[in-house]
Amino acid sequence: MTTLRGVYAAALTPMNDDLSPDLPALVRHYKWLLANGCDGLAPLGTTGEANSLSVDERLQVIEALSTSGIPMAKTIVGTGCCALPDSVRLTKATLSAGGTDVLVLPPFYYKNASEEGLYAAYAETIARVGDARLRLYVYQFPQMTGLDMSFELIERLVKAFPKTVVGIKDSSGRWPKMEEMCKRLPGFEVFPGSEKFLLNALRAGGVGCISATTNVTAPMAAKVYANWRGADADRLQGELTAVREVLESVPAIAALKALLARQSGRASWLNIRPPLRRLSDAQIDELTTRLTATPFAPAKAA
Amino acid sequence: MTTLRGVYAAALTPMNDDLSPDLPALVRHYKWLLANGCDGLAPLGTTGEANSLSVDERLQVIEALSTSGIPMAKTIVGTGCCALPDSVRLTKATLSAGGTDVLVLPPFYYKNASEEGLYAAYAETIARVGDARLRLYVYQFPQMTGLDMSFELIERLVKAFPKTVVGIKDSSGRWPKMEEMCKRLPGFEVFPGSEKFLLNALRAGGVGCISATTNVTAPMAAKVYANWRGADADRLQGELTAVREVLESVPAIAALKALLARQSGRASWLNIRPPLRRLSDAQIDELTTRLTATPFAPAKAA
Repeated sequence: MTTLRGVYAAALTPMNDDLSPDLPALVRHYKWLLANGCDGLAPLGTTGEANSLSVDERLQVIEALSTSGIPMAKTIVGTGCCALPDSVRLTKATLSAGGTDVLVLPPFYYKNASEEGLYAAYAETIARVGDARLRLYVYQFPQMTGLDMSFELIERLVKAFPKTVVGIKDSSGRWPKMEEMCKRLPGFEVFPGSEKFLLNALRAGGVGCISATTNVTAPMAAKVYANWRGADADRLQGELTAVREVLESVPAIAALKALLARQSGRASWLNIRPPLRRLSDAQIDELTTRLTATPFAPAKAA
Repeated sequence: MTTLRGVYAAALTPMNDDLSPDLPALVRHYKWLLANGCDGLAPLGTTGEANSLSVDERLQVIEALSTSGIPMAKTIVGTGCCALPDSVRLTKATLSAGGTDVLVLPPFYYKNASEEGLYAAYAETIARVGDARLRLYVYQFPQMTGLDMSFELIERLVKAFPKTVVGIKDSSGRWPKMEEMCKRLPGFEVFPGSEKFLLNALRAGGVGCISATTNVTAPMAAKVYANWRGADADRLQGELTAVREVLESVPAIAALKALLARQSGRASWLNIRPPLRRLSDAQIDELTTRLTATPFAPAKAA
């Protein structure tokens, strides 16, 4: 049996004008997310622009998180890099900071990697970390990595490391594959990478969702989560899905930063690292207009 | 007018049994390449497994190179990473080591990056390095990066930074696009990423080639380069192409390491980082058999 985990935000990384991580703003945002519908946080993922940060900058984020007062038990920290020593270093740092749960991309430079090679990358990371407390979530995101990890590969990892490889964040958007995984690997924690699949996931045995867009939709996602066995569940999910579909039709990370900039009045929220670019004022206006036609109800920003 | 540069190897990175870079073996290999047909070296590229190395490990390779006695003028060092601070740090380290020429991948995690975002990534890297000596080669390799940089993007970079953005390594395999670039950007140094296009490139105004497989084919490529205006040029290129086509039909980095292991008698040459995997003995046997049917003439290994 798995325990439900709920609504997680793939938390954004606020940046200073020189594009360094704005650590006080980051801690403020993390706490605001937990106060506004999130059960947990997934810092340093795709949405957090983790791969645009150096390892040292990522270590600073882990340090800021661990001293923020936020329970590390509510976090799943992104630690997967192209280079094995980097993934190991960030994972060890998370464990040293009191966390146990990490979200690990496959090494994503080589596109012709074999299943054997991807298996070896995870196995070697686990061996080098060498810590029985480790709880590793596989991060499936073929649209970014160019690598589509098969069910057989994931099953092999689970069988080899049953206490360590405990779940997956699946951002592929392919709900049938996630559903199959819920059924074929009971106890394996399946987080869809979008709140669009939250109700489906809970009904199929998934544990919640980890999503970019819950940086702004968490209050709505929390209602689905709280009422998923209730008569209103489908209506609430429908409202949430309508908002998500607007947000996923634009460059999401820039859009989320733009919305938080407007809600908070802090222009620095627009800062984003290349290759990502901020939206134009016209794009933001159009986005907010389109959201007005949905049930979107933003929380008062921090 | 560009100056011809010749045959470059995207140099392999020998590794110890713990998969750390074997720096003495690396320097030995680099010198062997220069003594056996290579005019120059491109360390820390795809073939060098650079993205599987941490930034600290890449700095160690640059340090080993700079103290090896190899003229830095014969090198084009791979310094492009997903994270801007990492690309800047490696580029500055190359300049501090006396090098001027770097090969820079676009930040390759985000697959939906706009041209504007990719332009910003290069522009910001150049600004932060802030060194007039810098000579930057764009590294086009859509099969690995998932990013296909347009002619317009490259032209825009060349116009904005005419003394800095001096050339390209194009590993796309699309000869017509490379030929067009030679014609439309006179003086821009076009290196095809395969020796298969060496003769074509020289005839079209390209400067040479930078290739993975010249780690073993450099003596043959050097003959094409030395005789490219001669009557034998097409025959020599045909022989070289026959060998290249065998090598590109297998996982090339593992195959090259396997061939050097057999030629040198050093089993440590087989060491390779996940997600890449070594070839099986049967695969190596089959490869060597297939090469026997070509004009492949390996140099005596170091």
